[in-house]
Amino acid sequence: MSVIVWWLATMVMVAVHSASAGVVELNWEVEYKLGWPDCKEGIVIAINGEFPGPTINAVAGDTVIVHVTNKLSTEGVVIHWHGIRQNGTPWADGAAGVTQCPINPGETLTYNFIVDKAGTHFYHGHYGMQRSAGLYGMMIVRSPKETLQYDGEFNLLLSDWWHQSSHAQELYLSSRPMRWIGEPQSLLINGRGQFNCSLAAYFNKGGLKECKFKENDECAPSILRVEPNKVYRLRIASTTALASLNFAVEGHKLVVVEADGNYITPFTTSDVDIYSGESYSVLLTTDQDPSQNYWISVGVRGRKPKTPPALTVLHYVTAPSSQPPSSPPPETPRWNDFDRSKNFSKKIFSAMGSPPPPRKFRKRLILLNTQNMIDGETKWALNNVSLVVPATPYLGSVKYKLRRGFDRKPPPPPTFPMDYDIMNPPRNRNTTKGNGIYVFPFNVTVDVILQNANGLDANASEIHPWHLHGHDFWVLGYGEGKFRPGIDEKTYNLKNPPLRNTVPLYPYGWTALRFVTDNPGVWFFHCHIEPHLHMGMGVVFAEGLNRIGKVPDEALGCGLTKQFLMNRNNP
Amino acid sequence: MSVIVWWLATMVMVAVHSASAGVVELNWEVEYKLGWPDCKEGIVIAINGEFPGPTINAVAGDTVIVHVTNKLSTEGVVIHWHGIRQNGTPWADGAAGVTQCPINPGETLTYNFIVDKAGTHFYHGHYGMQRSAGLYGMMIVRSPKETLQYDGEFNLLLSDWWHQSSHAQELYLSSRPMRWIGEPQSLLINGRGQFNCSLAAYFNKGGLKECKFKENDECAPSILRVEPNKVYRLRIASTTALASLNFAVEGHKLVVVEADGNYITPFTTSDVDIYSGESYSVLLTTDQDPSQNYWISVGVRGRKPKTPPALTVLHYVTAPSSQPPSSPPPETPRWNDFDRSKNFSKKIFSAMGSPPPPRKFRKRLILLNTQNMIDGETKWALNNVSLVVPATPYLGSVKYKLRRGFDRKPPPPPTFPMDYDIMNPPRNRNTTKGNGIYVFPFNVTVDVILQNANGLDANASEIHPWHLHGHDFWVLGYGEGKFRPGIDEKTYNLKNPPLRNTVPLYPYGWTALRFVTDNPGVWFFHCHIEPHLHMGMGVVFAEGLNRIGKVPDEALGCGLTKQFLMNRNNP
Repeated sequence: MSVIVWWLATMVMVAVHSASAGVVELNWEVEYKLGWPDCKEGIVIAINGEFPGPTINAVAGDTVIVHVTNKLSTEGVVIHWHGIRQNGTPWADGAAGVTQCPINPGETLTYNFIVDKAGTHFYHGHYGMQRSAGLYGMMIVRSPKETLQYDGEFNLLLSDWWHQSSHAQELYLSSRPMRWIGEPQSLLINGRGQFNCSLAAYFNKGGLKECKFKENDECAPSILRVEPNKVYRLRIASTTALASLNFAVEGHKLVVVEADGNYITPFTTSDVDIYSGESYSVLLTTDQDPSQNYWISVGVRGRKPKTPPALTVLHYVTAPSSQPPSSPPPETPRWNDFDRSKNFSKKIFSAMGSPPPPRKFRKRLILLNTQNMIDGETKWALNNVSLVVPATPYLGSVKYKLRRGFDRKPPPPPTFPMDYDIMNPPRNRNTTKGNGIYVFPFNVTVDVILQNANGLDANASEIHPWHLHGHDFWVLGYGEGKFRPGIDEKTYNLKNPPLRNTVPLYPYGWTALRFVTDNPGVWFFHCHIEPHLHMGMGVVFAEGLNRIGKVPDEALGCGLTKQFLMNRNNP
Repeated sequence: MSVIVWWLATMVMVAVHSASAGVVELNWEVEYKLGWPDCKEGIVIAINGEFPGPTINAVAGDTVIVHVTNKLSTEGVVIHWHGIRQNGTPWADGAAGVTQCPINPGETLTYNFIVDKAGTHFYHGHYGMQRSAGLYGMMIVRSPKETLQYDGEFNLLLSDWWHQSSHAQELYLSSRPMRWIGEPQSLLINGRGQFNCSLAAYFNKGGLKECKFKENDECAPSILRVEPNKVYRLRIASTTALASLNFAVEGHKLVVVEADGNYITPFTTSDVDIYSGESYSVLLTTDQDPSQNYWISVGVRGRKPKTPPALTVLHYVTAPSSQPPSSPPPETPRWNDFDRSKNFSKKIFSAMGSPPPPRKFRKRLILLNTQNMIDGETKWALNNVSLVVPATPYLGSVKYKLRRGFDRKPPPPPTFPMDYDIMNPPRNRNTTKGNGIYVFPFNVTVDVILQNANGLDANASEIHPWHLHGHDFWVLGYGEGKFRPGIDEKTYNLKNPPLRNTVPLYPYGWTALRFVTDNPGVWFFHCHIEPHLHMGMGVVFAEGLNRIGKVPDEALGCGLTKQFLMNRNNP
């Protein structure tokens, strides 16, 4: 079958769903299945047999109820609702060991929460490296009074894929010495990629052979079918395990209008950098030659790319569906042009009318990001503590005052290590494992300065996209080198900083963010790169601990909460 | 490095341990590690870093206390103490879903039981297919007044090994259509095998090349170092996932003295058939030319062998350790010479003085073994029910009267389906999934007739080694074709039938066994072939339900027991 014919066979249009009622209730079964995400057989985690999982469509204000039944054989499972703030329902955040116990095989947990704000969100596994295994899907929350004008929309969930199982990857990363998992074999758009072949092979670029598809092949690309002279909203989210991505549509400008579920001041760009954990909406006007079709390309940035771009096609209905694009796909910008990346980040401002940040912070935490060694293991650490999530969920420990649930000594004080040389490998490679948390008063303004540094190897500092649960934060600014207290604050944007839940920390630089501790609970804050989190790159924030409401027993029952709940006297 | 040199480097002598105290207490951490079981890298489950797990040495009457900490990332774990009857401690039997909840990651369960009887036992995982992943080890219980005379002993734990992960295997077996996992890549002796090479390549048999080892290679064979003119006890156990095995020592006769922890009437044989779940002790006299070394060979029987034999060497200290055996390894008997296999089984009689079985049975259960289909899945069924173990352990359900824990309707009545044609594929391939159990009165004699049949394909009936938890049973007899009630009982051996916990069911035949329901609890009875059990080939027996003692809360807390224990009023 030629490159022409797969096209018709796999053309997919994502329809605009109509507004739903006040409750969205779903029954989900999570299980492994054989799949062909990149045309090579592999094992994926599916929900109700679908990979990626089904898209949730809701309206802001809706209650979402998901009965998640674990049909895995021997593994626990949780689902994190990425971008949903879980105000009043911290137990439903879906972070194993932080807000709940894993759901045991054969059991069902009912997540029940309100989606209070419109936005392009997604969900994913948050236990071990189950996100890498394919446990993810999109979650679209519409506004009941949408002000954006567009004619149609598409959801594009981006991910990366390895041929080695996530179980093997976990073991490699924890091995002594650490064995790096390498770059992904494929990038996926809506769970579909092409390994070792290219849709654009006929341009003779990259040396890959033409892809052959059979009808209904799971790895054939989802084509975006558009009419000329219309405006489409592309909802793009990245749930990659590792890759930082760049998204472009051949011959079309993109107007970025939303970031992580918050409207921003629209700006026009030829391409979008998107890091794991981020989402964007872009408006695309189909104003090009309607007799042609056009490439959509997703390539790797930020790390030396060894993975070819993921491709699909923007198909004008006025062009023959069997006609491949006449020009080569857009080139992904040079991977290590970090100035270009930073420029993109710095173009993002909140939309007019968005709430500005408080003028001053009450607490400030500087988090030095380092790569270290401990007992032969390679680890990532914050202020020299590499996080090991305890068996007892923090939320249970604080709710029920189980003092042995985690180390009550707080992590190293948030004072900046003034003498640390961020430009060179650590003088002392050692770190410590820990599970202490940062406890903040309720309803105060907290600044976090993420400070990057050199890793274990010389001349190597990586991008880390940091994701905060339970909150949006204002991104006050980015800077080069070491943050200078008392000086760099002057560069902050306090006028229209964007609200986000994920933000990149660039090599050898710092990122400043601000949030208000207005959501009683325990919240994970971590690098969204799955291997980095697995290697300890996270911290835990707690706030309003005496205001935490009822935590359903079903969400607990492991570690110390098991014994506690069993021995609790009923009234 | 040549075939000569690995020898010295890896010579291992298993010493006779001295009698231990009344309590054997162990701290175990279970985790995955990278290993080279057959010289090819793979992922194994290790205990305290060891694969196979450490050998437990105890004396009959000892209390064994094992604190098992689950260090797996996302999987539960349990350990079954195979051959230990767990009288009074049914919760410690270690069968997930039957007698306990899986131990969650990061948690510790303390198994605490008495080893009331001497014998050659072993332990292994009993959740999902974790036994296939390498979770096993030996457990030797010595008699404080051993009557057997011997000069030294060796433990030989036999297993089979696949290069595909047990997770992938589970998925393949459950796929629609079922994808068979194939024959093992290697057989292992004490966790060591050689893939794609042979220690005996210099005889130019089988076309395999010579194995090259580096010093301390994990896959180099464990050599048995013996002195001439001594008697050695070889304790052999099989924990294979699939393979039925035959064990032989070149040039040496073997005197079989123990089967599944029970002394038998000694008999002399050139080789021993051993099925998964069985153990034997054989005495070997080192009466051969002391200037030579000799092969120990373990080959596949019962299935068309696609796996080369596992080899190691019996090394006389009087022979040069660098001198390989001068003759080829013993040939494994023809795989489908079932008459030879049955003859071996029929040579096994209890030792003089062993308790004879009760003369009559009070209850009889005939279990028809069939291979079936249900909704596209291939299943094994007993009396047309394919077992699906529930999320709530049976022991918890019966102890706390949780009526929804499993189907209270008993499985199909134990009446023999007289019209079932066991010689041909099933006329109706359908089966049903179920989780009902067989409840017996306390302290009665139960006969079970295992009845084999043809599988889904014509002319195919397989060996199934059936293992009963919580009991030894008397093997009353084996027969061809369909069991004829009222007639075949006359062939029973009621004088000196062997006591066992595992017994083979031969193709197109029946096996009769008898036991007394003297152990209050819930007991798994299943085919010990791991894929067959995964596909539903088991039943559950319960007895003395009102006599079950305290079940520690720590062993429960999943499924319905979670809610029950959390809501229970404390006095």
